[in-house]
Amino acid sequence: MLKKKAVVLVSGGLDSSVVLGWARSLGFEVVALTLRYGQRHAIEIESAKKVCRSQGVTDHRIVNVDLALFGGSALTDRVVDVPKGTSPGSSGAIPPTYVPARNTIFLSLALSLAESIGAKDIFIGVSSVDYSGYPDCRPEFILAFQQVAKLGTRAADTDDSYEIHAPLVHLTKKETILKGISLGVDFSSTWTCYDPLENGNPCGACESCQLRAKGFEEAGLPDPLLG
Amino acid sequence: MLKKKAVVLVSGGLDSSVVLGWARSLGFEVVALTLRYGQRHAIEIESAKKVCRSQGVTDHRIVNVDLALFGGSALTDRVVDVPKGTSPGSSGAIPPTYVPARNTIFLSLALSLAESIGAKDIFIGVSSVDYSGYPDCRPEFILAFQQVAKLGTRAADTDDSYEIHAPLVHLTKKETILKGISLGVDFSSTWTCYDPLENGNPCGACESCQLRAKGFEEAGLPDPLLG
Repeated sequence: MLKKKAVVLVSGGLDSSVVLGWARSLGFEVVALTLRYGQRHAIEIESAKKVCRSQGVTDHRIVNVDLALFGGSALTDRVVDVPKGTSPGSSGAIPPTYVPARNTIFLSLALSLAESIGAKDIFIGVSSVDYSGYPDCRPEFILAFQQVAKLGTRAADTDDSYEIHAPLVHLTKKETILKGISLGVDFSSTWTCYDPLENGNPCGACESCQLRAKGFEEAGLPDPLLG
Repeated sequence: MLKKKAVVLVSGGLDSSVVLGWARSLGFEVVALTLRYGQRHAIEIESAKKVCRSQGVTDHRIVNVDLALFGGSALTDRVVDVPKGTSPGSSGAIPPTYVPARNTIFLSLALSLAESIGAKDIFIGVSSVDYSGYPDCRPEFILAFQQVAKLGTRAADTDDSYEIHAPLVHLTKKETILKGISLGVDFSSTWTCYDPLENGNPCGACESCQLRAKGFEEAGLPDPLLG
């Protein structure tokens, strides 16, 4: 029997690498999608390639989207500094590392790819626990996008629908890491830091580094990237 | 008083040129957005530039999105032929010129731009009358996307919301043309054909040409592009 296809958004980070393993464990034939969106750091793309290779994914599409043109985020705009320390979701403030409507764009491109290859399942590694407070990581956003996917594609005229899987949405970073371990995910291929040092190491100080460190600490495991 | 900003999706076609005039007539300060998505015809981009110039729009962003990578549409994929004649929405069939999830992608990018420049209004020239049956041109899709815009941006944490304006959604092509005339839109700058002849003229036979011709005929006006 032919496996069902799924599109998995792979950023090269820890979360999406767990989601990739998760999708594969459910028996999907995975097509990985990485968006190159004017990130400051090409290392994210290289990590995405490594993550795919380490999990045996052979169909990996990398698509350019020029979000840098829009500006307005510390992740794409060199004028805006990446803040140090945490300002997590619990504080209620959306930090300057937020990229305007990023996950809407990512899911749209994943949807287009899914429709063109006949996949009805899309996986994204967002979490609304131990997160940075970005609105497009929350479950209500994912559900709203699922409705767009149904109404904005050929599925509108059929009984078909799309499922946007966000299996980490209610997991802590610790739980995500433990799930990844149980799936055999190699975290040494993943990259998390928003603002690497000149020598290529993670800064350890940005919010993303701190959430990762907290996750490994709570899981009682060493971070293989630092080992 | 400062004018309110709006993002207007401008394709270079007839409909979006009317929408551009419409947004300007409502007093918005317009930022035009054109997506270069692997169209077969660069002439669409040139027409978008002409349309913006003819309406005095000075802020026109052109962003590349590589949808050709995904394939699956006669508009982006050279392997698929553009059909001749009409297969309009009324027949219920979605034609091969449909680009998977195109308007979802377009609106996502418009939303990202809107959020980064502080605009809360986005204009798109879709119509569900005299159209090709694409699902992402219907009012229920536009409403679903409006919900995504609210939940997937900073607006999620405030009383703000986004309005996705689709002022042509219930207009016939004739009504759209008459509205454009009343707004002073110069239709000679617009381009409609999906499959131009080698001499650069519109083919006159594709569905898009035929819907345009029907509109001008019903409006009792000559098409200035053919004049």
